[in-house]
Formats: sequence, C-alpha cells, structure tokens
Amino acid sequence: MSTAVNRRWLLASRPEGAPVVENFRFDEAVLPVPGPGEMLLRVIYLSLDPYMRGRMSDAKSYAAPVPIGGLMEGETVAEVMESHNPDFVPGDIVLARIGWQSYGLSDGSGVRKIARGSVPISTALGVLGMPGLTAYAGLKNIGMPKAGETVVVAAASGPVGSAVGQIARIRGARAVGIAGGAEKCAYLIDELGFDAAVDHRAPDFAEQLARACPDGIDVYFENVSGKVFDAVFPLFNQFARMPVCGTIAFYNATGFPEMETIVPALMRAVLTKRLRIQGFIVYDFASDYPDFARDMAGWIAEGRVKYREDVVDGIEKAPDAFIGLLKGKNFGKMVVRVGPDSIDE
Amino acid sequence: MSTAVNRRWLLASRPEGAPVVENFRFDEAVLPVPGPGEMLLRVIYLSLDPYMRGRMSDAKSYAAPVPIGGLMEGETVAEVMESHNPDFVPGDIVLARIGWQSYGLSDGSGVRKIARGSVPISTALGVLGMPGLTAYAGLKNIGMPKAGETVVVAAASGPVGSAVGQIARIRGARAVGIAGGAEKCAYLIDELGFDAAVDHRAPDFAEQLARACPDGIDVYFENVSGKVFDAVFPLFNQFARMPVCGTIAFYNATGFPEMETIVPALMRAVLTKRLRIQGFIVYDFASDYPDFARDMAGWIAEGRVKYREDVVDGIEKAPDAFIGLLKGKNFGKMVVRVGPDSIDE
Repeated sequence: MSTAVNRRWLLASRPEGAPVVENFRFDEAVLPVPGPGEMLLRVIYLSLDPYMRGRMSDAKSYAAPVPIGGLMEGETVAEVMESHNPDFVPGDIVLARIGWQSYGLSDGSGVRKIARGSVPISTALGVLGMPGLTAYAGLKNIGMPKAGETVVVAAASGPVGSAVGQIARIRGARAVGIAGGAEKCAYLIDELGFDAAVDHRAPDFAEQLARACPDGIDVYFENVSGKVFDAVFPLFNQFARMPVCGTIAFYNATGFPEMETIVPALMRAVLTKRLRIQGFIVYDFASDYPDFARDMAGWIAEGRVKYREDVVDGIEKAPDAFIGLLKGKNFGKMVVRVGPDSIDE
Repeated sequence: MSTAVNRRWLLASRPEGAPVVENFRFDEAVLPVPGPGEMLLRVIYLSLDPYMRGRMSDAKSYAAPVPIGGLMEGETVAEVMESHNPDFVPGDIVLARIGWQSYGLSDGSGVRKIARGSVPISTALGVLGMPGLTAYAGLKNIGMPKAGETVVVAAASGPVGSAVGQIARIRGARAVGIAGGAEKCAYLIDELGFDAAVDHRAPDFAEQLARACPDGIDVYFENVSGKVFDAVFPLFNQFARMPVCGTIAFYNATGFPEMETIVPALMRAVLTKRLRIQGFIVYDFASDYPDFARDMAGWIAEGRVKYREDVVDGIEKAPDAFIGLLKGKNFGKMVVRVGPDSIDE
C-alpha cells in the first residue's frame, strides 16, 4: 500500500453546464474501520462513466443524486484487505460500488468476486462489466439485429459502442460506427472490424453517414442523441429499433436549444416507419448477466471481441478525466488506476 | 337501387393544410362491367378515417398516395350484385376496399364476407373492423396494460379510442379518456364506463389530466399527438408504453411550429423512465384478427363493449364529413351511408 490515508472526491457543488474541477472537493480521511460483517476494500481501479453526470444533478432521474458534500459514486475493482464477512477473505479481488475513494467499507451486498484470468481485472468495469452488458442486453432485448441488417452506434470507440458493433457483427449484421476523429474511426475499422466508420466532426457528417448506410438503418443504438440522432433519423428503415441508453449530447445542457421542434416529424416517422424507441438501464436486464458473461468471455477468447482501455494513473486525476470523458477525449474505456494491483508489485 | 350511375369522388388536388371541398371532384360514370373472375359491388357504407388525409398527400408514407384524378381510397361494406367469382354470389355482404364510389369491381382479393348477426353490418368498418383491431392489437402487442395500471387515450369517443378504453378496463386497468367537449366526456363515463374523462378544450386541460391520473400514466395510446401528447408526457410512469397509431394533430400541418424542441426532454424521459414508444399500422398485426373477432364479438354480446356510429347519408356528403372528421366534429365512428341495405328496403 502506498498510503494508509483514504483519499476521496466529494461533490462540492452541482455543475451549471459542463462540470468543472471546482465542482469536486478532494478530501483525505483516516481509513474506515470495518464493523461486524463488513470488510475493508482497497480500490485498484475506479470506473468513470457518463451516467455519473446525472448523479451530480438533482434533476429527477432513475437514481437519487449524490448529495452536496457526498462521496462521488462509482464502481470499482478492489482488493479485500480485512474481512469480517465469511464470504470474502483478504486478497480477494472484487467488483464493488464504493465510489471515488482509495479505501472503502462494504457489507458484501452487491459485491462480486473477480476471478483472475487471461484478461486484466479492470475489464470487469468495461467489456466484461456494466458497459459490455449494456451493449449485449440492449441489442438482445430491444435492438434485435438480424443478419444482413445495418446497425449504427455512436461513441463507437467507447466501451458500450465498441461492444455493440462487434456483437452486431457476430449476429451477422453490418456495423457502422460513429466516432470523433480519424484515429478513432481507423481503429473501428482496422482493429474492431466495423464495416464502416464516420467522423461526426466532419462538416458533411450527415452525408457521409448516409453513404455509409446505403440500405438504411435498422438498429440505432442511442448513446448520444443531438446532431448524431438528427443525422440518423432520416435513414431509419421500416421497423427500425432504437435502444436508448444514453443522450450524452445533452448531459451538460442547461436548457433546451431554441429550434424547430422535430417532435411532429419524429412521431410521424415513428408511425409510418413503425419505429420502436425504447429506453433502458442496464440493471433492467440484470438477469442477462450469466449469458452475457459466458458469451463475452468466449468471444474475447476467440478474438471476436476486442476492447481498449484508457487508463489514468492516480485518483487525484479523476475529475479531469471525467470532465474529458464528457467531451469525448478518452479513447476506450476510461478507468482510473487508484492503487497497485498486488500481483504487479 | 336508387340509381344505376356510379357516383364517385376523385382527388382533384393535394391539400395545403386542412382539406377543403375543392380538393375533391365529384364524378358520375356508367356502371363498371365485371370481367372474368370479377364481381360488381354496390356500396352500402363507406368508412371515413383519419388515415385518408395521408393518402391525399404525396409525402412518403407506408402507403402510396392517391394520384391526382384518382379515386379516393376507402373501405366499404357492399353488396355483391353480379359475380363471376365462384367464392361470392349476388346478395353477399362483403367488406371491400373499393373507395369513395357507389359501385365498384373486385376480383375478390382482400374481400371478406360479413355475416348478418346481432350488430349492424356497418360495424365491420368500426368496432368489429379496422379501428377495433387497431385498438385490440396495439394494446396487445405494445401497450400491454396490466391490472391496476392507468391507460390514457385521446380521441376517446372515436372508434379506436372507445375500444382502447373499454378493452383496457376488461384487462383490469383504469381507463382515462380525452375528448373534445362535455357531451363526449359524459358519454365516455356514462355509456362506456371510462374511469375518468378530460376535455382537451378546457383551458386547464393539462392540470385536469394530471388530476385524473393520480398514479401517473402507464400506457398512452397515441392517436393525436400535439398538445395532448405534451400534457401526457410529464405524467409517464417508469416503463410506460406508448403505441403510436396516429398523430391527427399534425395531419393538416404545413410545417412544423417554431418552439423549444422537446427532443432532449423526450429522449431523457425515454431513458430515465424506460419508455417504449412504438409505431404500428393495423396491418402489421393482421394475424391477430381471428382472436380479435372472437373476443370483440363476445364482449359486445356481453355488453362489455359498446360502440357508437356517426352516420351521414349520401355519398355527396363524403368530403364535408371527412373535413369535419379531421376537426373532431364527428361523434363516434364516421360512416357514409351510400346506398340502402337490401334487407331494409
């Protein structure tokens, strides 16, 4: 252990628009002491994910906001240091939602052991974890791609998008990814095997997307909304499906832009094209986890699914990394390496 | 037969905004002569339905537009006058899509015989026909109301809406209808057994709707959109479903109103409330017809489903009746009595 102080990030204030570092407050505290049935966890990796922006706001959502002065929420991969819980022993590596801190307590509820294997333990936060399951379950339950169909996903080099495209191809569909910049687009095609990639920063983005989808769009996996949705929308085929798992384009919005409403056009298309637009949260499909874990581990072992992590070293960098994540500055699953993995020491 | 001339309405021009009588051209022609395999039909009832507004436009939709100079499309209940088709004999009463005319030919494809029973043959155009099936299948496949849930439907005194509310109650749900005017609202509660009815013309319509739905809205059967949707939208519960079968508020729109876009708010709600918004056309669920016909006939016989028709006499009145329909002037299923039923003569 590098330190026996608990280093934490608290929510200092609610953001107006994009979060700034001043919205976070760094805090050092003494190590918490586990009570009966509890264990002390040392965080190795902290996951940073766009949903955390929602927790910083007090707008009504599917989960309660982080209170002002409260610990920032987040999922971690951690090592059990001390355990009064019969199900866990020191040295166990676990997945636990203990937030933006270097140590934390848990009574074991919702905690899952991570077996060491051929992939890094950090993948439990990405391709083998919540983002991977989001892709898997959203496609299985709502997107339902069929062989020969066209599946489009934005934020395609991120952990959800990259899994969406690769699973779509495994299902026999054509995968078209949308990402920011030439490097990410090349990665989608060259590394992940997407059929096409379109840079949303291109001035003729909408035209490029239309050319990349000559047979229209059957499934649009919505992570983004905004101008990406506007370009996707006219390309929907009849009976297209749109799983909605994120609208990152609006997460920092302080109000809604004045523009011609597209609700009439949207609803007309929903009707005439028989679109299905359906929101979901990954936890709605928690029962898919066993199938997902089996399939995804197999696909990774077979080389059919690849993944990329964007690792930042040190919990002190978490706010900057998170602010960058909301701007698309990451390239792959964003994780913070909070402490060393004991087997690397 | 009152006349042996075929009286027809053709599309004279495409409407700009709301249709006017000048968009229609009356025409008298000699009776068509059935060829081999064909039959001559005499129309007794012509159905008028909102979807016909779409056929008058050349905007891309799920069905081709009526060409300028072409016969207005529509479903009819007709009597077989002469038949060279072995499946039909003179005197048969049939359901046939032969349009806004007093006589027409058919080769029998898509034609269904109507048995005379305890309900008028005109109900094949309404509660026992396309509008009834729309309600039945939209609820079965998308709305999926559960006992104790709240189902809201607009245009609730019309043929689709009245069936939606009554079927919802049969399924154990609470039915809230939206209609225009006190008379229609009273009808919903007193005659059809809706749990609540709200007049969309009331200045405090949105507040009244919220009071009528103290537990929120689980299913909104969308026939209307526009300001009704705006009032429904904030009341959606988690996992609410919205079958979209019409957006009559926009059918006469020539452009989209300038206003704050609600797409960001819509998509945020789709996500956080896990809404399911799905368009459908009744023909998508044609395979539900046998179940529907059995169930609905049973419900009518048991007095659990009631219906109301708004009958206009004379095909010459079809354009005025249709123009009124789009303004909500009808009260019940709009049908035009084109010719006498032979058993009434």
